[in-house]
Order: sequence, then C-alpha cells, then structure tokens
Amino acid sequence: MSESSPPNPTLDEAFIAGVRRLLEEGRREELARQLADLHPSDVADLLDDFSTDEKVALFSALEADDAADVLVETDAETREDIIESVQPEKLRTTLAELEPDEAADVIGELEPDEAADALAGLEDRDEIEQLLEYPPDTAGGLMTTEFVTLPAGATTREAIEQARGASETTHRNYLYVTDADSRPIGRLPIEKLVFSSPDTPVGDLMETDVHPVPTDMDREQVAEIARRYDLLAVPVVDPGTGTVQGIITVDDILDAAGEEAAEDMYRMAGTGATDPLHQPVWKRALLRLPWVLVTLLLGFLAGQVIRWLGFDPGAKHALLLFVPVMIAMAGSVSLQSSTIMVRGLATGDLRPYRTGAILWHEVAVAALLGLVCGTISGLVAYAFFGGEVGFAVAVAFSMFCGIITAATLGTIVPISCHAVGVDPALASGPFVTSLNDIMGVLIYLGLGAQLLHLFD
Amino acid sequence: MSESSPPNPTLDEAFIAGVRRLLEEGRREELARQLADLHPSDVADLLDDFSTDEKVALFSALEADDAADVLVETDAETREDIIESVQPEKLRTTLAELEPDEAADVIGELEPDEAADALAGLEDRDEIEQLLEYPPDTAGGLMTTEFVTLPAGATTREAIEQARGASETTHRNYLYVTDADSRPIGRLPIEKLVFSSPDTPVGDLMETDVHPVPTDMDREQVAEIARRYDLLAVPVVDPGTGTVQGIITVDDILDAAGEEAAEDMYRMAGTGATDPLHQPVWKRALLRLPWVLVTLLLGFLAGQVIRWLGFDPGAKHALLLFVPVMIAMAGSVSLQSSTIMVRGLATGDLRPYRTGAILWHEVAVAALLGLVCGTISGLVAYAFFGGEVGFAVAVAFSMFCGIITAATLGTIVPISCHAVGVDPALASGPFVTSLNDIMGVLIYLGLGAQLLHLFD
Repeated sequence: MSESSPPNPTLDEAFIAGVRRLLEEGRREELARQLADLHPSDVADLLDDFSTDEKVALFSALEADDAADVLVETDAETREDIIESVQPEKLRTTLAELEPDEAADVIGELEPDEAADALAGLEDRDEIEQLLEYPPDTAGGLMTTEFVTLPAGATTREAIEQARGASETTHRNYLYVTDADSRPIGRLPIEKLVFSSPDTPVGDLMETDVHPVPTDMDREQVAEIARRYDLLAVPVVDPGTGTVQGIITVDDILDAAGEEAAEDMYRMAGTGATDPLHQPVWKRALLRLPWVLVTLLLGFLAGQVIRWLGFDPGAKHALLLFVPVMIAMAGSVSLQSSTIMVRGLATGDLRPYRTGAILWHEVAVAALLGLVCGTISGLVAYAFFGGEVGFAVAVAFSMFCGIITAATLGTIVPISCHAVGVDPALASGPFVTSLNDIMGVLIYLGLGAQLLHLFD
Repeated sequence: MSESSPPNPTLDEAFIAGVRRLLEEGRREELARQLADLHPSDVADLLDDFSTDEKVALFSALEADDAADVLVETDAETREDIIESVQPEKLRTTLAELEPDEAADVIGELEPDEAADALAGLEDRDEIEQLLEYPPDTAGGLMTTEFVTLPAGATTREAIEQARGASETTHRNYLYVTDADSRPIGRLPIEKLVFSSPDTPVGDLMETDVHPVPTDMDREQVAEIARRYDLLAVPVVDPGTGTVQGIITVDDILDAAGEEAAEDMYRMAGTGATDPLHQPVWKRALLRLPWVLVTLLLGFLAGQVIRWLGFDPGAKHALLLFVPVMIAMAGSVSLQSSTIMVRGLATGDLRPYRTGAILWHEVAVAALLGLVCGTISGLVAYAFFGGEVGFAVAVAFSMFCGIITAATLGTIVPISCHAVGVDPALASGPFVTSLNDIMGVLIYLGLGAQLLHLFD
C-alpha cells in the first residue's frame, strides 16, 4: 500500500481539462492525436471522468484499431455507456478489430438481440460464438485462441517460421508442442529457439511441465497454478478429450487474480458487486440492500431475544432493545463503504481528485439504504415493541441518521488515512467498525431519547 | 472461487503417507528421488504437513540446487524452522545456489548475527548486502539483478550473443536498451530478435514504453503498472539518477499482487499478520489481540454512553449495558476467523484434509483472546458497573464463551460453504457477522442471567 503518486501521472486534472477543451471546441483531429499517444488503458481510465455523451464523442474520435484497444480496457459502466450510445457502424468497425476472445468478452455483456446484431457482420463469428459458451470466470472464458502449436518432430527452423507467420497479436512467449491427438505435451519458451541450432527437433528443447487446465476450471485456480509454477501462459484443454482449446496468458491471469481478490473482499463485505465504484448510485444501493436487510433481520431477532430472556424494560428503556440492530447496521454499512474505498485506493482506481464525488455517492447510497431500513425499523418498532407513533418515529429517524454516519465514517477514514500516508486497510478495519459502534449507539439513543421526549 | 480439486493433485494424503514411510525407514535416496520429481513449490507445500524435525530431515535429503529452489518457495514458518535447525554447512551450500535477490530475501529474515554468518561465505556477498538495503515490499526489494542491457546501437546478432551468454536464471523475455547514462530507454521482447535480420540495430526494434519504477515504489503500485500496461517485466531505477538497478519479472509481480490483496484483507479484519495460517497459535492470538482490545475498549465506551444518556437500568438489567461490547467482540473475532478461512480457501493454502487441525487452532486462538478479554471485561464490570462479584463473573464468563462461539462460527461457516460448493466469501460476510450478533446476545444474556441468579 503506497501513498506516492498514482501509476498514471499524465492523467491529472490539467490534462483532463485540456481534453475537455478540445472536445468542446470540436477539434477532433487534435483530440485523436492526443489520445493516440496514450496507452489504451489510460484512455479507458480517462473516459471515467466524462459524461456519457462526452465518452461517446471521445470514443468516436479514435481510429478503429485504437478504439478497439480502448474498448477492451474500459470498466463495465463505461463500456455499457459506449455500446448503447455509439453509432452502430462505429461499433461494428471496432468489434471487427478485436481478437476473437476480446470480441467475445465485449459481446457477452450485450443484451441477446444486440449481441446477435453485433455478431452478424463479424468474420470470426463462429469462433466468437463458441467462446461465448464459456462462463467469463472460467478458463474457457479467459483463454485466447491465438497461439502456436507444433508437432514434437518439428525443427527449430520450422518453429521459427510458424511463429513468424502468425498474426501480430498471437502469444509467442511459449509455443506449444502437441501429440497426434492435439493434447499439449510440452511448452517451448521462445528464447530456446534463439539459442538452438536450426535442425534441433522441438521435442528435444521443450519443457514438459505444461500444467494444462480444463475449460471449466475457475479462474482463481488458474491463477494459483500460474503463480505456483511461474508460468507465462497456461494451456486450456477440453475436460473430456484433453485436446488443447486455447491458452491463457499471464497478463490476463494478473487481471483475473486482481478481480478475484477484489470479488472476495467485496463479497465478504456484502457490497454485492465486483466493480462497485463504476455503478450508478441506485444500482449500488440495490446491490448492497440484500446484505443490509439480512443484518437488519438478524438484528431485530437479537432484540427479540433480549425480551425472550426476560429483559423487558418499559417506556424509554425500550429503546435499548434496538441497540443490537443499530450496532449491526452501522457495522455492516460502514464495512461496505470502507471495503470499496480500500480496494479502490489499492488499485489506483480511486484517484485523489475524485474524492469529493466519491464521498457524495457513498452518502447518497447510504441515504437510500437508510430510508429503506429506517422505514422498516419504524414499522417493526410500531408493531412489536410499543404500538406508539412517537417510539416508531424515534427508531426510524435515528436508524436513518446512524446509517448515514456509518457510511460517511467508512468513506472518510480510509481516504484520510491514505492522504496522510497510513495504510487505509490497517486503519479502517476494526477501528472504523468499533468507532461506528459507539457513534451508532450515541446517535441512536441520544436522538431517540430526544424524539421520545418530544412526542411525550 | 472454485470447489473442484486443489491445484496440486499429487499432494494427497496417500502421497504424504508414502513420504512419511520413506522418512521413517531412512530410505533417503528414494526420498530424494521422489521429491526431485515434484515442482519446488509442491515440495515446499508438502513440508507444511511435517514436524520441524521431519522438515529438516526432508530438506537435508535434497540436493543443494533442489534445496535452494524449495527454500525460496517455503512459507515464513517453514523457512524459519529449517534455517534454525538445519546443519550450518547445508544452509551454506543451499544459499550459495540462490540468485542474489533470492538469497537477500532469505537472509533478510534471519537475526542479525545469523545473517552475518550466512553472508560470510557467499560469493555474491556485496550484491546481496546492497539488495538487503531495500525494504522487501518495495520495487528494490522485489527486483532481480540478473537481466540483459544493451546500447541502442547494438545489432540483433550482438543482442542474441549477449542473451545466450547470460546465466541460465537471467530474465530474457525482455532485453533492456539503455542510454549512455544507464537509463532504460527501450525494451526488446526476445521474439523480435527471432524475427529480425542479424544486422538490425536494436534501437530500431525496441518498444519505448518501458515504464521504469523507482526503487522505493511500493510493490502494490508496481503490480498495478504491470497489470495496466501488460508487461512481462518492469525495470527498476534509482529515484535520483534514473539509472537502471534491476528488473521485476511478472512471476514475482503475480506473487506480490496476491500477497498485497491478502494483506489488505487481513488488515481490514485486524488479523495483524500477512501469513496467519502458518503461525503458531500463541503468536496468532498475540497479533490479533491489539485489534480485539480496540474493539473491547470502544465497546465499553458504548456501554458508558448508554449510561450517560440516562439509561441506567438496575440489577439484572445492568447486563444490557454490556450488549454493545459483546456484539462488537463477536463481530470482530468472527471476521478475523472467516477472513483467514476465505483467503486460505481461495489460494488453495487451506487444503480440505487439514480442516480438523485448522478448526482446533482457531478455537485455541479464540480461547486465548477470550481469556484476556473476559478477564478485562469482568474487572471493568466489577469496577464501574456494580462492584458485585457475581455480576463481574457473569460478564467475564459469558464474554469468554461468546468469543469462542464467534470464532467457531467464523471458521465453520466458510469451510462448510466451500464443501457444499457455495462461495465462502459470499456466505461468510454479513451473514456470519449478523449470525454472531444474535448468538452473542443469546449466549451473553442467557448465560449472564443464569449466573446472576446463581450468585443471588
């Protein structure tokens, strides 16, 4: 975890302002030139800072091959924005530039009828359709079909000829040696070709630890195999016949490993999304809601347990019965917020100048969650614990305020820690959770007692 | 997240039993042969299943070069066991086989006087000492010094000669082109050498997006750069002069990215260790204790807040004042346990047949934490909330039981989910936390009320 400059120093506010000016003044050629100088990943990242219309305008300014490279690197939200709003002709020319596995990734995210339209015009249609059969988080969904296979009897010279003849985008760090049934039996690091005499059979040079994985293996396990055996590529085979179907390259494995780790963190925190920073507010709230409701339900049960056990305080003290649910809710919502922040800061996805917008979005999400949970809590309080309107309103309103406070703390603490050079993960775990406990109790009981007093 | 077989299918219970038999019967040569057939990562993993004495015996049976490869792949605990107990002569011959950056990683973990002894006999001593200056989680700590640099004017033929002459362990997927001041100005993927005529200057073939990183950059950011720009290696430069000091290869980046993600998860859960599955029980408890104590302290404050706000129930109802701390403690301890399980299952580190031992260890850790926190809680209850022995004992004992229950649930739920094919991360986040809330309240108030009754 580091506190120094972000990995893409060119993408600062000044640069973004410059791009915006060119866009507003309609200087498309200059714009295309400036964007072509950036790495496609950086252009994809840049798009995040613009509105949907601007995204589409920027994307349309790119040449077809640049546009294709950029589209592959975009996050889910930006990609959806572009695909839905760009001219169909531009989308077609862009898709035609993609490798089959990349095209499958993009088309896999479209609605069925859009996908059919997009596929119609493409040369590699059959191959793409076959790749679309594999779930995106399996070896089959991750593999590329552009690689080189050789029989064991081929010579070094023949291997070089075949690798040279392959397309530009073909993976050539390893060439794969297969048997008569197309099963991978060896891998040939390309440097071995450089250092060997032209007539050596590749069977004599190859390494035999190929570690093939079946098409249905989960990408997390594929990453573990590449990591364990220090591989630059892993061949993917049919689980039945063992014939080679494609290969997964280490750059895609590095991406997949990062996404899997993020997914585990997000799931543990119950954020319900793999890419929560790039979703609209209402969708983020909706994805988080189920987990929050589980917490709410079990929190009510805890309150009910207190009564079953014979602790039944009257009047004002009935507020105490909702302390467990309040603490659980504050902990749950703040863990969601802080997990999203910690992960965003770790991957550089959450850039410092976006802090304001991000805090605002988190508070908005929390307000939606608070509205739902506050209302439910009020109704439960009315029905089960009193039947008094004042009590119900006190519970509902203080729950609403407690949830917003929890989300705000869960967002601000990691960002502040990052700003002063403390690891956000270290500071925002048990500390934020516990801080929320006490804030939650303070707000809930303090506000609740005041409101009860008002309604008396 | 997958539920199919672990990535190293050879390492099953039958294989381990076979190794143990060979070891007990003293058939060292057969043993060495069997282990030499495995990948060093698999041997390192296998060592986990043996006692310290057995580990040392197995390690000593390996040839020096195999032993070196295995030592690099061991986890912290196994490495410490081996280094502390193996014959000094065996350690020396093993270290002599390592690359300088690997030797630095191993020696960096030794006590100062052991490190001095280990360094004394080594050929690359100066280089290793220099590498030891860099913190292990920075670019400098991650880099290898075995790579090839060329001037831009060198021809393809000269580049091939130089790469061919380098040692076996030298990284050769990219050769680096440097300027007159040793600053990296280009990278040359080795396949370009294969496909070019012998007299082409490498300056004409090189890619200019080298993305150099300073020696003090955090490894998380290095991983982000490799991921973003799809690089097989990243050159590391002096932050002042920009001269190239080493390179980081993608296999080390993949390892580092995994460790960073795990570190963030563990830190958020407050487990206080980067490798908690491979630590002795007392150490795991000690590392988790600070975060548990923070929770405890803030939980007490929450109880005090309830009193400040004028909620001051008498006698039996005073137990309610400790509900917040009980919920917070259960949540905190169970999040620690479930995070360790989720991560261990995700990386394949936690193999199914070890489940029994792991559950037992987690319960033992929780018992230690529960003993400390229960005692503190009892004292606090005695001093501040009553001055009655019965009340203090009721608080202390129910806190102890609640913490053990929380750790048990936090361990069992992820393992059970994994066994039936449900993603442990998904199930063990908000669900386990909330389940613990209600169990915590039930155990604490139920047991507490009974005990209070007993002392009356």
